[in-house]
Amino acid sequence: MTVEQLPMAVPAPGNLPARVRIHEVGARDGLQNEKATVPTEIKAEFIRRLADAGLTTIEATSFVHPKWVPQLADAEQLFPLVSDLPVALPVLVPNERGLDRALTLGARRVAVFASATESFAKANLNRTVDEALAMFEPVVERAKAGGVHVRGYLSMCFGDPWEGPVPLEQVVRVCRALLAMGCDELSLGDTIGVATPGHVTALLTALNEQQVPTSALGVHFHDTYGQALANTLAALQHGVTTVDASAGGLGGCPYAKSATGNLATEDLVWMLRGLGIDTGVDLGRLTATSAWMAAHLGRPSPSRTVRALSQEDSEGSDDSQKEQ
Amino acid sequence: MTVEQLPMAVPAPGNLPARVRIHEVGARDGLQNEKATVPTEIKAEFIRRLADAGLTTIEATSFVHPKWVPQLADAEQLFPLVSDLPVALPVLVPNERGLDRALTLGARRVAVFASATESFAKANLNRTVDEALAMFEPVVERAKAGGVHVRGYLSMCFGDPWEGPVPLEQVVRVCRALLAMGCDELSLGDTIGVATPGHVTALLTALNEQQVPTSALGVHFHDTYGQALANTLAALQHGVTTVDASAGGLGGCPYAKSATGNLATEDLVWMLRGLGIDTGVDLGRLTATSAWMAAHLGRPSPSRTVRALSQEDSEGSDDSQKEQ
Repeated sequence: MTVEQLPMAVPAPGNLPARVRIHEVGARDGLQNEKATVPTEIKAEFIRRLADAGLTTIEATSFVHPKWVPQLADAEQLFPLVSDLPVALPVLVPNERGLDRALTLGARRVAVFASATESFAKANLNRTVDEALAMFEPVVERAKAGGVHVRGYLSMCFGDPWEGPVPLEQVVRVCRALLAMGCDELSLGDTIGVATPGHVTALLTALNEQQVPTSALGVHFHDTYGQALANTLAALQHGVTTVDASAGGLGGCPYAKSATGNLATEDLVWMLRGLGIDTGVDLGRLTATSAWMAAHLGRPSPSRTVRALSQEDSEGSDDSQKEQ
Repeated sequence: MTVEQLPMAVPAPGNLPARVRIHEVGARDGLQNEKATVPTEIKAEFIRRLADAGLTTIEATSFVHPKWVPQLADAEQLFPLVSDLPVALPVLVPNERGLDRALTLGARRVAVFASATESFAKANLNRTVDEALAMFEPVVERAKAGGVHVRGYLSMCFGDPWEGPVPLEQVVRVCRALLAMGCDELSLGDTIGVATPGHVTALLTALNEQQVPTSALGVHFHDTYGQALANTLAALQHGVTTVDASAGGLGGCPYAKSATGNLATEDLVWMLRGLGIDTGVDLGRLTATSAWMAAHLGRPSPSRTVRALSQEDSEGSDDSQKEQ
């Protein structure tokens, strides 16, 4: 089965969206969770290749203090190498200092990252949830005043390693606060990958009931327990049209006991193409890019689609005599 | 997140079944696709541990000629070691000779394996689709006459490596033929893992329209392109209550470029528990069994849930400072 012989496109029942925007996070969320630090020039080529594959929103890097994320310490050097690309290039900013650095380089889209739980806010930001929101408030205000688009990430929307299942009301409260301060869109993160489809639907419904429209929401699933794509299907069935994914499943190491990476963009594109949902992505080019990055990182891609398509030529004959 | 701290159980919208029967295929479909041949005593212990974990249908082995599946050449030795277990223990039989061997040992459930495509029938059975059906006819007839339950596997129900997408009508025709000859249930196989959720729904609908009831249908997804669990969700939403899965994702090698294994039972159970759907399976025991088998095979389990739960103690602290 080659890219050209993709399965039948058959829309699922229900009101699935005609088009989905993929928010590609491999260069940021992916690479910051890889052990190896990738050279700046390789990162720039990676982002260029992602754009060439048809991705229109490519999160480029993070202006967090290099002490916390050494893998992305080259943000100042990287951003100018890709800022000419005709795609949206959001960057992460944790505070006003990060925003200043991003704005100086001409960033037109930024993202802040909040937590739905006190435990993770404390662990990740050394603040309470409300202290973190207070830290983001001037960031969002200044960004918006400058016409800069702001995404609000929300971690631990489903489960938290310290607190267990996260009450829906808790997530709704932080989502409303982020929108109230001016965020243009939110990304609901299942940071530890524990969500299941009914929980996804329940959270989206609870948000709608509290005046948070689905059009302002993206979903960000991790594949820790293999649930990311099933959860994405549930979100699509609810009307979500923005899905975060990481090219090649970057950020999840296939050798580690636990592969806690993001949903692989290729696995997502495979499903969306099969459902007849337009993404604008060329799966062949994207897969080649992820295989190239995996080779650079010296290990196979965690994306099943990347691995399958990378050996497509030998597949037909291998399968025979095996299914008895 | 430990097994005891599973995510919130939140049923998905729509009429999901209250209970799902997992048809566990790890000991047969899984092990026949592993490179290593597992000693008979280990297989017997594996099946015993699966039963102890709450699985009620455990496909035990295959009475195919050992030349074709050397990994299961010990069927005669294995079956008597587990036949006392209080669970259903179906075995694969390709022809009357296989049926004789199974009946001699007291098997009460058998399965035949047909193909929806001519190319795979030729490659797998060296017969046309109709010649294969003719071969199964006396097998099913004799089994039924003896009160033996018969499952009909149908390979390549969605795509075929030689023929590409498989027309729905072709699958419907073979399903109807298998039911007409007396099969009690069918298993719709996505042998090369190319299906997507809309295609699943379309096939189930087409079958219903041609008098094949959903209650007679199980689904058998491979995770080659990461679609297995999303496809399962679509099948559940259509009313399917029998799902094939392989403990620990046996049959898919995590080191190989292509992991073409079955849906991992643990990943399935994680989703079903989250959806509030009863399976009777103890996820902790099942995971421990799959980790034990992975150690025996000398490589990590391809199941993400098995890998995540196997290192759950270190997970909370590892995640901090990583999600910025």
